[in-house]
Amino acid sequence: MFPDFSDMSEYNIASLSRLIEQFERLPGIGHKTASRLAYYILSLSDEEAARFSDAIDDAHKKIHYCKQCGNYTDKELCPICSDPNRDRSIVCVVEGPRDVIALEKTESFNVLYHVLHGVISPMNGITPDMIRIKELLARLSEGNIKEVIMATNATVEGEATSMYISKLIKPFGVKVTRLAYGIPVGGDLEYADEVTLSLSIEGRREI
Amino acid sequence: MFPDFSDMSEYNIASLSRLIEQFERLPGIGHKTASRLAYYILSLSDEEAARFSDAIDDAHKKIHYCKQCGNYTDKELCPICSDPNRDRSIVCVVEGPRDVIALEKTESFNVLYHVLHGVISPMNGITPDMIRIKELLARLSEGNIKEVIMATNATVEGEATSMYISKLIKPFGVKVTRLAYGIPVGGDLEYADEVTLSLSIEGRREI
Repeated sequence: MFPDFSDMSEYNIASLSRLIEQFERLPGIGHKTASRLAYYILSLSDEEAARFSDAIDDAHKKIHYCKQCGNYTDKELCPICSDPNRDRSIVCVVEGPRDVIALEKTESFNVLYHVLHGVISPMNGITPDMIRIKELLARLSEGNIKEVIMATNATVEGEATSMYISKLIKPFGVKVTRLAYGIPVGGDLEYADEVTLSLSIEGRREI
Repeated sequence: MFPDFSDMSEYNIASLSRLIEQFERLPGIGHKTASRLAYYILSLSDEEAARFSDAIDDAHKKIHYCKQCGNYTDKELCPICSDPNRDRSIVCVVEGPRDVIALEKTESFNVLYHVLHGVISPMNGITPDMIRIKELLARLSEGNIKEVIMATNATVEGEATSMYISKLIKPFGVKVTRLAYGIPVGGDLEYADEVTLSLSIEGRREI
């Protein structure tokens, strides 16, 4: 239990409040955790604090989107796009850079990626032109790509985005696939939801 | 579930790794959360990222210990030490600045504080001279203080620190008290541990 600082205006130090506010903007960090982290920053030595703020500046300055796939990189092309051993005829479309890492960890995927940096979400004011869809169409128009694997999240918005993009891709005449739905490995049938279960029945394979 | 980045050396971007490392140093932040936060920083606009790193620099530059009590402040004296309505004959000794805020929130305390910035902990290499004990003795030697309330945490180290300081204080002839142990308000007797319960019996009061 940490004390709540929100109404401690008497003891508020402007620069401390601002630091707490900044930590509070981070995903999954509430007010109490933010104030705990801010106090921790104060307890650091000058060098350690400078190292922290420099790491933020440095990462933000050096890291940008890969010119081709949109993944984060500090070079012009990311290591995947510049890897000569990749199958350049398949492009896997994902929502974010961390999805690339998740898929790469399977070690069963030797394709190129396309990072959308978001999903279409009218509720949150994200329209199709705000994510990297036109960059994907530009890549397709070059004519080397034979298959596009849609690997957006299995959420309503991920699905909608996937459907929207599939329709745009159709005219290019490339194959469009998406990742299989089913019971997760190690998962209990008993606890699987009906939708997942019926999709895993629908997608059953001969053994 | 977030992918584990620790063995993704192939896709490692030096400045990103450093940023993840910095977040990982924060208390209660593991590797996965750290990488989530680092990726969030990358997704910020340049101005937003700069605001974050500036907040760290700024807080660290402007905030220091109060000359008297050792609490954080951006002035010479903290608002509590410079408050003319405080009872200056009682000093409450706490481990950290956040303890001051917790006690202040009771609104039943109109005393001065002394922040130790740590506890004696031989296991972690924290010796008595590494926390603000001599500053406390200096304040006592001025002769205005009549009572010292020990309010360190009810942990082994907090207890030991409290005992150590009490012994040093004895020669000054001031009253030394400590916060009462007992069942927390709203707490279930059934779930209270034996030590707490026996201390609450020992410390029982007439009603």
